[in-house]
Amino acid sequence: MGKTMSEKILARAAGLDEVKAGDIVWVNVDVAMMDDILGPRVQIAEKMKQLQASVWNPDKVVIISDHYTPPATIQQADIVKFTRDWAKEYGIKYYYEFLGPCHQVMMEKGHIVPGAVVMGTDSHTCMGGAVGAFSTGVGSTEMLGILATGKTWLRVPETIQAVWTGILLNGVMAKDISLRTIKEIGHAGATYKAVEYVGETIRNLSIDERLCITNMAVEMGAKAGLMEPDETVQAYYDAHDIDCVVKPLSSDEDAMFCQTYLFDAEKLTPQVACPHEVDNVSDVTDVGKQKIQQAYLGSCTGGRYHDLAVAAQILKGKKISRNLRMLVSPASQHIWKQAERDGLLAILAEAGATILAPTCGACLGVHSGILGEGEYCISSTNRNFLGRMGSKKSGVFLASPATVAASAITGYITDPRVFL
Amino acid sequence: MGKTMSEKILARAAGLDEVKAGDIVWVNVDVAMMDDILGPRVQIAEKMKQLQASVWNPDKVVIISDHYTPPATIQQADIVKFTRDWAKEYGIKYYYEFLGPCHQVMMEKGHIVPGAVVMGTDSHTCMGGAVGAFSTGVGSTEMLGILATGKTWLRVPETIQAVWTGILLNGVMAKDISLRTIKEIGHAGATYKAVEYVGETIRNLSIDERLCITNMAVEMGAKAGLMEPDETVQAYYDAHDIDCVVKPLSSDEDAMFCQTYLFDAEKLTPQVACPHEVDNVSDVTDVGKQKIQQAYLGSCTGGRYHDLAVAAQILKGKKISRNLRMLVSPASQHIWKQAERDGLLAILAEAGATILAPTCGACLGVHSGILGEGEYCISSTNRNFLGRMGSKKSGVFLASPATVAASAITGYITDPRVFL
Repeated sequence: MGKTMSEKILARAAGLDEVKAGDIVWVNVDVAMMDDILGPRVQIAEKMKQLQASVWNPDKVVIISDHYTPPATIQQADIVKFTRDWAKEYGIKYYYEFLGPCHQVMMEKGHIVPGAVVMGTDSHTCMGGAVGAFSTGVGSTEMLGILATGKTWLRVPETIQAVWTGILLNGVMAKDISLRTIKEIGHAGATYKAVEYVGETIRNLSIDERLCITNMAVEMGAKAGLMEPDETVQAYYDAHDIDCVVKPLSSDEDAMFCQTYLFDAEKLTPQVACPHEVDNVSDVTDVGKQKIQQAYLGSCTGGRYHDLAVAAQILKGKKISRNLRMLVSPASQHIWKQAERDGLLAILAEAGATILAPTCGACLGVHSGILGEGEYCISSTNRNFLGRMGSKKSGVFLASPATVAASAITGYITDPRVFL
Repeated sequence: MGKTMSEKILARAAGLDEVKAGDIVWVNVDVAMMDDILGPRVQIAEKMKQLQASVWNPDKVVIISDHYTPPATIQQADIVKFTRDWAKEYGIKYYYEFLGPCHQVMMEKGHIVPGAVVMGTDSHTCMGGAVGAFSTGVGSTEMLGILATGKTWLRVPETIQAVWTGILLNGVMAKDISLRTIKEIGHAGATYKAVEYVGETIRNLSIDERLCITNMAVEMGAKAGLMEPDETVQAYYDAHDIDCVVKPLSSDEDAMFCQTYLFDAEKLTPQVACPHEVDNVSDVTDVGKQKIQQAYLGSCTGGRYHDLAVAAQILKGKKISRNLRMLVSPASQHIWKQAERDGLLAILAEAGATILAPTCGACLGVHSGILGEGEYCISSTNRNFLGRMGSKKSGVFLASPATVAASAITGYITDPRVFL
């Protein structure tokens, strides 16, 4: 019987010849990541003291303050300071702050490599699967155990295969692939499973686009979202001066998949997840002339260079609607600088957008673009739960950067193909 | 007996041949400005309804949402929405949001002209005096009366003359003039008086620099900070496509000044206002190696183009200290775009600064760069009261953009002349 990517990675990490879906195994964690909001300050610091424990390997721990930067309240400032001080106290090798959302920073700094087991205190840690890592979110209790011992236990997940064939049409983006997949599988349809995205459509995507898709695997309940590492991944590492030689890693042809979904990219149109569920997905043309007050382009899901470039292409020489604000938060300082250098930020600003610092802020409703009562936002982020970006009487529509940009021009949800 | 600038302006606004310091007069208000934090939502909206009043002249009212943009909480978002909706309901001609701090936007949009009487619901409205307007802050009760009637009463202020002669040395900025003046006059030394800044030093300053000085007149308790409009002011209007012909306006030679202070610019060194009073001012060389965790460059006081240019000159090719964050919030979208175009933002970002949206945010401790317990900030803003930028156990040192930039490099308060 062949093996899935997850089975191969977890067997290696468990020090076993082989494991199979359903097995419960102890694995060695290659990288442990904590952020500010759910990092040391949540029990971990206190319990580590009580246990008189030290960190199993401070060189394998990465701490990133991103949710509360720049701090909007004293409490947020205190948490960032606590996180920074704790990292120093425990000799953590890699502490970053003010650089942008953790998952993007983890990629850019080379902390996620194919075949690695990565655990982070943020649900979208699954993003790292785009380069073939088994990367997943854990709570602080699990993280405590990982910090103290370097190990954790996992049930080896069954794998759902999402096969995408064909070439994406103009105006259709990776985010549309992500939303369309979630619509089909459902918000709980992959609970504790791995989802492997395969097929020529996926192979043709840039890393920026691939990351957008695996980022949202957790929105189906998935433990991991995986893609096969290839020469595009190698090129990404090379471009970022990351010392990593990518070796082939894929599921065997005769591996067991619990489900296989087939998608035709050429039939895909821009998708919109309407309030208040990520799987409440419609074709953009079916949403109607829904008015919006905020267009948000940013986050670890939809604020990468390619996202900004597509939005800039649509907004170049145009102005956003007088009746809304457009906020742009690049997914990292690195991307901010690159986009600035190439004139993308200037184009967006000339169109009337406000360029924010790279931050998690508005995506989860903690600062930098909160919605008031009765306000609607179209957003390139990952969640549209009730009250996610602010008031419980507001609403979030999730869509691609192209759809966000097109809608910013008109003031209502708009098919980006109109502008292309 | 000759007349001061204030006496001339207020006589005209009162419809009288002449007024003198000490007179209590009713004046017609030329422009009424409200912001979001102390605008319609504070009593004004409710009372206008109760009075069944309409706005005396909606074309003379400017409303600017700036303190709570981008909103960091649901309450802030609701206030911005309320402000926007109220402006619409009352037919207010000029409503701006997300463009940056109100005082700078008022200047750029041409709402402040020499000789005008401008009233705003923010204490730093006095900034407008840099172009020879009688511009001052009022509370919401006064603003209610202004909105309903177009008039308000004032005691014609006595005038303190601050005479600056000589040329500023390299590394010394308008902010240092401002702090040095405040040190001399004291934080309550000009209460209900006007302060006129005159002399060759002032005449040689750009508008960006002049605005920095009058902005802080209120930090001595002054009702107004005034400068004589001249060809530099005319050039500013022309450059901003503002239709205004500047006519001479100055105090008569034999006007009565209640006090005159003489300052020698050539003896001025970089100044620092230490916690927690604006007039607790020392020469930078006397402050000692005070460690800082945040360097803040921004606000209506210290985030203009010239401020960013000076900081960029110091930071070009250098890196900020690993032990701090540097936050840059340009004073308006207009400035953001200009600074981006000219490569200043790129230089600051390359040095490690985080570029924020133009906002009042951190300056008054409502979002976008709050200080936690035990943190110290060097800031180009206007106030360092206890807890102004966050925790009551934090501290703010006020200084020029040059001193902020130099300190960002070293991690402690540093004389910028070291880098020039």
